[in-house]
Amino acid sequence: MKTEILYGIHPVFEVLKAGRREIFEIYIAKDKTSKRIEKVAALAESIEVPVEKVKPLELKSMAGTDLHQGIGAKTGPFPLTGISDIVDSIQRDEGDHLLLLLDNILDPNNLGALVRTALCVGVNGIVVPKDRSALPTPAVSKASAGALEHVRLARVTNMVKTIKTLIEKGMWIAGMDKASDRPVFFSDLTGSVGIVIGGEEKGIRPLVKKHCDFLMSIPQIGPVDSLNASVAGAIAMYEVFRQQKFAKKNE
Amino acid sequence: MKTEILYGIHPVFEVLKAGRREIFEIYIAKDKTSKRIEKVAALAESIEVPVEKVKPLELKSMAGTDLHQGIGAKTGPFPLTGISDIVDSIQRDEGDHLLLLLDNILDPNNLGALVRTALCVGVNGIVVPKDRSALPTPAVSKASAGALEHVRLARVTNMVKTIKTLIEKGMWIAGMDKASDRPVFFSDLTGSVGIVIGGEEKGIRPLVKKHCDFLMSIPQIGPVDSLNASVAGAIAMYEVFRQQKFAKKNE
Repeated sequence: MKTEILYGIHPVFEVLKAGRREIFEIYIAKDKTSKRIEKVAALAESIEVPVEKVKPLELKSMAGTDLHQGIGAKTGPFPLTGISDIVDSIQRDEGDHLLLLLDNILDPNNLGALVRTALCVGVNGIVVPKDRSALPTPAVSKASAGALEHVRLARVTNMVKTIKTLIEKGMWIAGMDKASDRPVFFSDLTGSVGIVIGGEEKGIRPLVKKHCDFLMSIPQIGPVDSLNASVAGAIAMYEVFRQQKFAKKNE
Repeated sequence: MKTEILYGIHPVFEVLKAGRREIFEIYIAKDKTSKRIEKVAALAESIEVPVEKVKPLELKSMAGTDLHQGIGAKTGPFPLTGISDIVDSIQRDEGDHLLLLLDNILDPNNLGALVRTALCVGVNGIVVPKDRSALPTPAVSKASAGALEHVRLARVTNMVKTIKTLIEKGMWIAGMDKASDRPVFFSDLTGSVGIVIGGEEKGIRPLVKKHCDFLMSIPQIGPVDSLNASVAGAIAMYEVFRQQKFAKKNE
């Protein structure tokens, strides 16, 4: 079985809390000790996961990075969700839904930041294409502050086909596009909505964009080019969250 | 006169466009050439700023970092704005206003990210305390994608005194506080508003918090602790922007 080394306090804490991956062992650097690390170790021991003290250099070598904060975990691979499971749950469960579709997000830090915000607004699932996305690696788990361990993430072969299926099932698919003159704040984002977000440089691929129900942009004033991709994604996700969970109560 | 070396394509391009700092010379690494760098060099030459080709190692040594992307600029210091100029402009100009008050933002990357979003929503000014803030350094200009070169930023000795003055002048001061049960979406943020944002670890200092008119939070669901500080700041700024510029038209 393929194993991974998760690293960093948040990813190790969250993988233990989430209970989705097999967890073989927790590693703690001998020179590092803090209340936060002790708390994680106590949680591991409470669910009978062995905790081993290792040399800092060993941990660095296992994690492949200096950014381990003195703690690592040997786990099974990231538990992907099937796209059909995500579609089924949206059809089954009442209420408004939000999916996040990420096209061309190649940078693990951007993917991690988007996953972190997505979990905060309670997305029903994240969809990435197999060939145009960063993988859900330990680096992404770290960049997401461990949020990756809780989200439902599906990898799909064909993003256009997935969008067509979601539209058939009654979802509205909105693509983020800087060139659109429809502000996100003037778009109705209640009901079941999928937001498509593209990469920082090139945005959404043209064929994917063409299959969205509509395009929208984050309004900006001022002389400088554009928002950071993960901030733009966060504004869009929170506008859906606001409309679905807060705006109705206000009316 | 104290000089600084700005580095990176965006900061150098924006400092030339902004026309606020004295600019002595642009440096281009001999091994680097690209359309974007040529565009910046052409802009420099059009306003009679000398452009010099230097060895990459020289540029690295001047910038003090590898992150120079092949371009640097020798400039005067960052042009701080006086807090009284910011207050005067808010009293003089009609319409809704937004100030960003940053307390305890010590990390240059967080400061840069907040400045970048602040410029996108057109803030009237950014206020930081002299003793509890990252300085507006070239690293912050880089992290802001050059947005720092355009914003009005004031350093104040006493944040509490500044907040008292702003309230006397008729502004509403809202502090972001995770512990508040008042969602930002249910707060009236029209008129003249100052948003206070604290650091990622400890938030706003208690005495500063005590002097805010009210506290509010970014709603979150899901099992993980919290949003990234610069994302939380972006959501708050965009909610003000939405209410001030978009919500009224909808009603």
